[in-house]
Amino acid sequence: MRLDFKTGELAPRDRTNIRKLSDMKGMFLDARAELFILETENPVIYSFQEKILPEESGHLQLAITTIHPGKIGDEYFMTKGHYHRRPDASEVYLGLEGQGCLLTQTVEGDFESIVIKPGVSAYIPPCWGHRMVNTGSTPFVFFAVYPGDAGHNYGDIERTGFAKILIEKDGKPLLIDNPRWKKI
Amino acid sequence: MRLDFKTGELAPRDRTNIRKLSDMKGMFLDARAELFILETENPVIYSFQEKILPEESGHLQLAITTIHPGKIGDEYFMTKGHYHRRPDASEVYLGLEGQGCLLTQTVEGDFESIVIKPGVSAYIPPCWGHRMVNTGSTPFVFFAVYPGDAGHNYGDIERTGFAKILIEKDGKPLLIDNPRWKKI
Repeated sequence: MRLDFKTGELAPRDRTNIRKLSDMKGMFLDARAELFILETENPVIYSFQEKILPEESGHLQLAITTIHPGKIGDEYFMTKGHYHRRPDASEVYLGLEGQGCLLTQTVEGDFESIVIKPGVSAYIPPCWGHRMVNTGSTPFVFFAVYPGDAGHNYGDIERTGFAKILIEKDGKPLLIDNPRWKKI
Repeated sequence: MRLDFKTGELAPRDRTNIRKLSDMKGMFLDARAELFILETENPVIYSFQEKILPEESGHLQLAITTIHPGKIGDEYFMTKGHYHRRPDASEVYLGLEGQGCLLTQTVEGDFESIVIKPGVSAYIPPCWGHRMVNTGSTPFVFFAVYPGDAGHNYGDIERTGFAKILIEKDGKPLLIDNPRWKKI
């Protein structure tokens, strides 16, 4: 039998999810810039293609995310960010294209940032919330894997934001304290 | 505070593991070719760099593996292949460089092969054994992620092999039945 040259994927179908600015209302610091942009357009901030897999222990979830280049005010386009519903579930990232930054924190206020480039992987330990940010001028593409039963907790980030936000200043990324952040 | 430009990795240290031909004695079909090569050299078949992480539920394990190009007889260089000690643990692969093939099977005799190229991901469902094969002339590099508590069961593959093996014939990969394979 000749080798069957498939294009990948043993099992599951794909699902593509799109996050527009209107899906992230209030998550960027500059509320006036957000409103101004939404008056004329509703840009796609990021999209991710995931496999449809069982949300069960032993399984894994995987996704390829593309964050478009751009800013709302001075703040770079980013993902919503989340903790896991199962708080002790970890996550793995691998940079594929472009350049970005991983922001990660605990509810106790620990914070770390890691620059992600193609070939750079990051391990997000259990209980650390995580958000990716595109600090470049091209699409930032990365691969993510997490336990099947991890789930998502977006609400805590929606309420408190991240402890730090990533803005562009003098053409370079700069981490500043988020004045709206508070411990849960 | 300026963005801290690290080179990656939130937490753990790396460990590099090397698999030479002598570590895979009897796993290639052509025993005479294996012995002949081992008389003069002991080539590295593959190596993998993994993070030192807790082997617990909720955590993940990740590794980057490089299979060198080459053959033992007509059979391409490959990984040992394994089931998981926790049989219902799955695994995710993502091709990074070069070209290869994923061989995957169940103990009941189901078998699938998937060509892996840079950017192609494969999901290995619970209970499927898996082996990667370098079918190209350059190093085949891929990223793997699996649940922290998956563990490895190499013994069943060492005893029975895979149902099919991947050889080169007329300069092309060809899947043939493994005459030594048997159900557990």
